[in-house]
Amino acid sequence: MVDCAIFTLKDQALHLLLPERAKNLQTGQRALVGGRLHLNVDRSPEDGAMRVAREKLGIDVRYLEQLHSFGGLDRDEGWTVTIAYIAIVQMDQIPVSLQSDLFPVDKIPKLAFDHNEIAAMAIARMRSKSSYSSLPAFLLPPEFTIDDLRHVYQQVTGAKLVKTTFRDQVLRQGFVEKTGKMSTGRTYRPAELWRLADRTVANFNRVVSREAGYRRAIK
Amino acid sequence: MVDCAIFTLKDQALHLLLPERAKNLQTGQRALVGGRLHLNVDRSPEDGAMRVAREKLGIDVRYLEQLHSFGGLDRDEGWTVTIAYIAIVQMDQIPVSLQSDLFPVDKIPKLAFDHNEIAAMAIARMRSKSSYSSLPAFLLPPEFTIDDLRHVYQQVTGAKLVKTTFRDQVLRQGFVEKTGKMSTGRTYRPAELWRLADRTVANFNRVVSREAGYRRAIK
Repeated sequence: MVDCAIFTLKDQALHLLLPERAKNLQTGQRALVGGRLHLNVDRSPEDGAMRVAREKLGIDVRYLEQLHSFGGLDRDEGWTVTIAYIAIVQMDQIPVSLQSDLFPVDKIPKLAFDHNEIAAMAIARMRSKSSYSSLPAFLLPPEFTIDDLRHVYQQVTGAKLVKTTFRDQVLRQGFVEKTGKMSTGRTYRPAELWRLADRTVANFNRVVSREAGYRRAIK
Repeated sequence: MVDCAIFTLKDQALHLLLPERAKNLQTGQRALVGGRLHLNVDRSPEDGAMRVAREKLGIDVRYLEQLHSFGGLDRDEGWTVTIAYIAIVQMDQIPVSLQSDLFPVDKIPKLAFDHNEIAAMAIARMRSKSSYSSLPAFLLPPEFTIDDLRHVYQQVTGAKLVKTTFRDQVLRQGFVEKTGKMSTGRTYRPAELWRLADRTVANFNRVVSREAGYRRAIK
C-alpha cells in the first residue's frame, strides 16, 4: 500500500486533501489518498504513489517525499504495511470537484484507519522541514514575488519574518532565480517575479526562526 | 522485508555491523542484517526488525528507529520492499564471533543488493541527527562521564567540542542525570558518572556545531 498526504496552499493557508472513501473499507469516511502497489506497472513505491494520485484524483504530483512506513496487525484489515508520502500540489491543479475536500492543517477531521496518526506526522514534517529548506516554495505557482515567498514561509512555519532580512537571506541561499518579469494584475505596485532555481528541495545552512530571520542549522 | 543498520562504538569510532550472508541470495557477500516479516509473530515491522536481530545475531536491540523504505523492481529478486532501520547496540552486546564484521563508517565495503545505498543513508542520518539530539549517548554504556559523552559527540558529528562549553550545554539540555557514583579503574582521576534521564531520544533546541559548541536549531 501507499498513502499520500497531499498538501496545497488555499487562501494563503496550508491545507490537506482528504476525500471521502468511495469504496472498500470505511466507505464515506475521510482519508488520505491511497491504494495498492501494482507490481506489474509501478517500478517503485514512488511511482505507485504518483500513479494512485493520477488515477484517483487526476492530479500530476510534481513534489513527492517519503514520510514513514506504517504497518502491523492493528492498522487495517489484518496485517498491512503502507508507505506514506508527502506530496505538494498547487491549488490550480486540484479539480474543482475536490476543492471541498481540502482541510486546513489545524482542523483535520476524524479520518479512516490510522490516517490521523499519519496526517499528524506529515504536518509535523512539513512544518519542521520548512524551517530549513526551500520546501514551502513548492506550494507557490512557478513564478512568485519575494513577498509571496515570505508569506508562505510565515504560514507554514508559524514564524514572523522581517521583510528585509528575509529577502537578504533568500538571496544568500540562492535557491531562487529571476525570471526577468514583473508581477501584474495586482492591486499593489509590480514586483519582480522569481522562480525556483532547481526542481529539488534545497536544505539551508540556517533555520527560519520564530525569533530573528535565519539561524544556522545542520548542514 | 526489514533491514537493520546496526551501529556501535568500537575503539571510540562509529562502526556498522555487516556480516557475510550465510544463505539465500548473494551468499558470502557482506550485507545489513535483514529478514522477512513473520506476520504470525511480528505485531509490527519494528517488532520484526528486533526479532531478526535477536534470531540472527543474538542481539537484543534497545534503540531502533525507522530510516526509510526501499523498494521496486530493481532492488532484489523481483519486486520487493524493505523497511530499513537504524539500530544502536553497545559494543559489549556484540558476540565475539561477530566483532570482525564491524566496519568503520568511513570504510564500508561493497555490500549485497542495494545495501550500500541504505548504509549511506543510515550513516548520514546518524551524523545529522547526532548534531541536535541525545542520540550519540545511546552508543555509550549505561553509565558514563561527561568526557566520554563529549568524545562520542565529537566522533559521530565530526565537531570539535570545547570541554567547558560542552558540559554547560549538556547540563542545560537536561537529558542526563547523576548516578551519584564516580568512575574507577581508569588511569586518570575519577569523574562523576552520569546516565540518560530517559530511554527515548531527546531533541535539543540547539545544534552541536563544528564551530562553537551549540547553536539553536529547529524545535
